[in-house]
Amino acid sequence: MKRILIIGIGAGDPDHLTLQAVKAIARTDVFFVLDKGEAKHDLVQLRHDLVDAHARPPYRIVEAGDPERDRTTPDYAPAVEDWRSRRADVCERFIRDELAEGQTGAFLVWGDPGLYDSTLAIVEEIRQRGSVHFEHEVIPGVSSVSALTARHRVGLTRVARPVHVTTGRRLAEEGPSADDVVVMLDAHCAFADLGADFDIYWGAYVGTPDEILVAGPVPEVADRIRELRAEARARKGWIMDTYLLRRVSR
Amino acid sequence: MKRILIIGIGAGDPDHLTLQAVKAIARTDVFFVLDKGEAKHDLVQLRHDLVDAHARPPYRIVEAGDPERDRTTPDYAPAVEDWRSRRADVCERFIRDELAEGQTGAFLVWGDPGLYDSTLAIVEEIRQRGSVHFEHEVIPGVSSVSALTARHRVGLTRVARPVHVTTGRRLAEEGPSADDVVVMLDAHCAFADLGADFDIYWGAYVGTPDEILVAGPVPEVADRIRELRAEARARKGWIMDTYLLRRVSR
Ligand SMILES: C[S@@+](CC[C@H](N)C(=O)[O-])C[C@H]1O[C@@H](n2cnc3c(N)ncnc32)[C@H](O)[C@@H]1O
Ligand SMILES: C[S@@+](CC[C@H](N)C(=O)[O-])C[C@H]1O[C@@H](n2cnc3c(N)ncnc32)[C@H](O)[C@@H]1O
Repeated sequence: MKRILIIGIGAGDPDHLTLQAVKAIARTDVFFVLDKGEAKHDLVQLRHDLVDAHARPPYRIVEAGDPERDRTTPDYAPAVEDWRSRRADVCERFIRDELAEGQTGAFLVWGDPGLYDSTLAIVEEIRQRGSVHFEHEVIPGVSSVSALTARHRVGLTRVARPVHVTTGRRLAEEGPSADDVVVMLDAHCAFADLGADFDIYWGAYVGTPDEILVAGPVPEVADRIRELRAEARARKGWIMDTYLLRRVSR
Repeated sequence: MKRILIIGIGAGDPDHLTLQAVKAIARTDVFFVLDKGEAKHDLVQLRHDLVDAHARPPYRIVEAGDPERDRTTPDYAPAVEDWRSRRADVCERFIRDELAEGQTGAFLVWGDPGLYDSTLAIVEEIRQRGSVHFEHEVIPGVSSVSALTARHRVGLTRVARPVHVTTGRRLAEEGPSADDVVVMLDAHCAFADLGADFDIYWGAYVGTPDEILVAGPVPEVADRIRELRAEARARKGWIMDTYLLRRVSR
């Protein structure tokens, strides 16, 4: 039987890696990497660094270009699902052609594999196609949400209250659906119009040497976040940022 | 200056510990432990095991009984806040009397410190009282939510959709507030009345040798979960369980 590991590597700091992930990397024969192109090189580089630090020879790294996502369509979910299918084609080839029976292959997944990441769905799709047989196991990781709140030294949840995790698109469409909302995948600063009844805890590149943190009442810090974000994005060519919105009574 | 570390230790598996947490434990002089009494001895034991495995001598472990929470009042939030204040008294003494200037003290927090845990609020309360001065740092951990979804090999979020994290009490009062809801702190199987349009991914003692996992449409598995839960709780004297509810179209 072939064995596939889906390993959460944490959200940017190489020391977010768990002991379980270190051991999983050490028993991997082949690492599968989808290269996201020049701009996001840092993200691929972290994976290479983790492999260098923790893999046990002999091992191989197999890379392929990540299929392009159609960013022209306004219909986000179908575009992502089509993209996922094309990524599944690439990963199916990885597992079929690059892994021998009895060997272990691994995907290193940013943050926690459960949170807005397509790897689990891709592996499930490949299993259901049935053209290649394998077992698989998932190793949880530190999510960017945990990394963000830790760096701000703030709780994600308040006593007995819910927290909602959503996307920038949803926030723009629906506004904050709870008193505590985490927003991910926001390309447009969807928080900017909120009033002084919301505090924001914002972080970009959390856990990395480029980390930027800003916190405060939304109207007081929104412009600064927008400027810092635009400047960092221009300088590095990509950005990953997340924030917690918290309704407060002043 | 005194230094306090609030270290997420993961949700049950000693290998959930991150390299960052391992290093933080290694630079701690004094570990502070609130003992939760006989029944939850396993929870305290894991902390001792992690200290034994990763701390560097000389170090000390200081223990105190965890103040009792008033479980008779129906008013959950005030009872928890009162409890928190009394825990803050104990922790304030820890920091003031058990830690010398220049030393590092640590709280080992179950899962991720941001998720339904009072340690951050306690440390903040102590800071605001101003009777003892210290710096503090938070180390994120693998949450029980990440541990649960990893063991079920299922995504926490679906493409472009939100997920809500809430408590058993809230679920009982409000029902599921989204198509994907994670429920924690549920002593009463609040999922039991949901219909066949919800799948449940349930786990108890996730990541430990006692782990129990059940998944399926709610009406098909609710009774089994209830029985397994009651039996395990009676046998061990305590239980920690979490679940993801996912609305599906069949
Ligand atoms: C495709 S999702 C993957 C999330 C990842 N699985 C996790 O657990 O964090 C990418 C989004 O995660 C967030 N993100 C990931 N890493 C981050 C970091 N180091 N700092 C800030 N946000 C981050 C951003 O909102 C980004 O748009
Ligand atoms: C006080 S909260 C602490 C949560 C913790 N900070 C975390 O990140 O998971 C305790 C609740 O977490 C959940 N929980 C913690 N560890 C768990 C485990 N190993 N298996 C299942 N549920 C767990 C249960 O819902 C439990 O009622």
